[in-house]
Amino acid sequence: MAYPGFFVVFEGGDGVGKTTQANMIAEWLASPEGGTRYVTTTREPGGTALGLQLREAVMHGGDVSPRAEALLYAADRAQHVDEVVFPALEQGDIVVQDRFIDSSIAYQAVARGLGEEIGRISAWAADGLVPDLTIVLDMEPDASRLGEDLDRVEQDTWARAGEIRQAFLDLAERDPGRYLVLDASRPLEVVHSDICSALEAVLPKPSRGFRVPKPVPRVGNWTQWDLSE
Amino acid sequence: MAYPGFFVVFEGGDGVGKTTQANMIAEWLASPEGGTRYVTTTREPGGTALGLQLREAVMHGGDVSPRAEALLYAADRAQHVDEVVFPALEQGDIVVQDRFIDSSIAYQAVARGLGEEIGRISAWAADGLVPDLTIVLDMEPDASRLGEDLDRVEQDTWARAGEIRQAFLDLAERDPGRYLVLDASRPLEVVHSDICSALEAVLPKPSRGFRVPKPVPRVGNWTQWDLSE
Repeated sequence: MAYPGFFVVFEGGDGVGKTTQANMIAEWLASPEGGTRYVTTTREPGGTALGLQLREAVMHGGDVSPRAEALLYAADRAQHVDEVVFPALEQGDIVVQDRFIDSSIAYQAVARGLGEEIGRISAWAADGLVPDLTIVLDMEPDASRLGEDLDRVEQDTWARAGEIRQAFLDLAERDPGRYLVLDASRPLEVVHSDICSALEAVLPKPSRGFRVPKPVPRVGNWTQWDLSE
Repeated sequence: MAYPGFFVVFEGGDGVGKTTQANMIAEWLASPEGGTRYVTTTREPGGTALGLQLREAVMHGGDVSPRAEALLYAADRAQHVDEVVFPALEQGDIVVQDRFIDSSIAYQAVARGLGEEIGRISAWAADGLVPDLTIVLDMEPDASRLGEDLDRVEQDTWARAGEIRQAFLDLAERDPGRYLVLDASRPLEVVHSDICSALEAVLPKPSRGFRVPKPVPRVGNWTQWDLSE
């Protein structure tokens, strides 16, 4: 894609630390050590007003069939890519995103058994947008969580956590140049440091004409979403 | 598909009389002249509680991107097929439906230029369900409606009414055995009479083992939707 920005996506199962690492790397990129860059952090699903309304509709609309749910995720993605991601990339931001197409493939196509049409629909929804770098946070699913107070859908997801994990690894293996798979069972700061090194290696240097942010860092408003909430 | 029911869909542009004809034929099929059959009438989009909430989300969610809108129609369809159409067909009803996949193709793929992926996504959403008979109500678009008090989207749709009409005709031409194209500019009763004849020719005779409804006709509750509203 021809845009001046850079698109980093965090993928992986539930509870591997995607949101935490996304926040940490976003703060680092916006800091002087990380190049004082413009950063947009966002997430799917739910990264737009429409997305939030769709979540509302799903949660209060009675039983939603699996294909309908998958198509709602796709609609959320189409809106999010058009409204948030492309505009940020076009103005040169580093977009740090929590989940994207690979999550649809791992959860809907593989774990729910909806098949490979999910990947095709997701790619169409995203208008062909592909991450410049996908960071897969990989770790052994924590089996103890199956005993927690989870609803039926959550129980089912945890029962398939192994398949979901493998789906992310398979996707990474198919396109290794665009993926970084990290052992997320290590301490947060160690994982973070690996991510910093990887991004330093692939991002254009700010001194080579990267857009210089205003003196006041955008820490107050660079978040499309406060991912920590 | 292996179900005892029969799936009839009305297609065509805006204002050609689909809703009126669907109601007329449903009443006729439920009447003694039409075989006192079980009938379910329904529509897309908006034939389920989820569908209504999606419509709400679209109408109050700010600008919705064209791909997001198309995917919401697909989600609505997936839910509707699973929740309404398949169960009715499985219990042997004649399902009389106002709009289905062909409307997505005519409006989204052709008039909005979203391309043939729309047909593929629609077919996946519908889980492969194909109408036993599609009745295309065809007439010259009424150019005078362009002067009416329409919003921009409606103006745009009317400006493309000729393309939309042609899209339905092209679909009918590709699979003539499953389509009936009728000149909808004729009087209502004349068009209705053509539809009665066509259905009489293709529907199994009630006396040949078709499920016999209870003595009280279902006129009060056979409608999933009152299509006349």
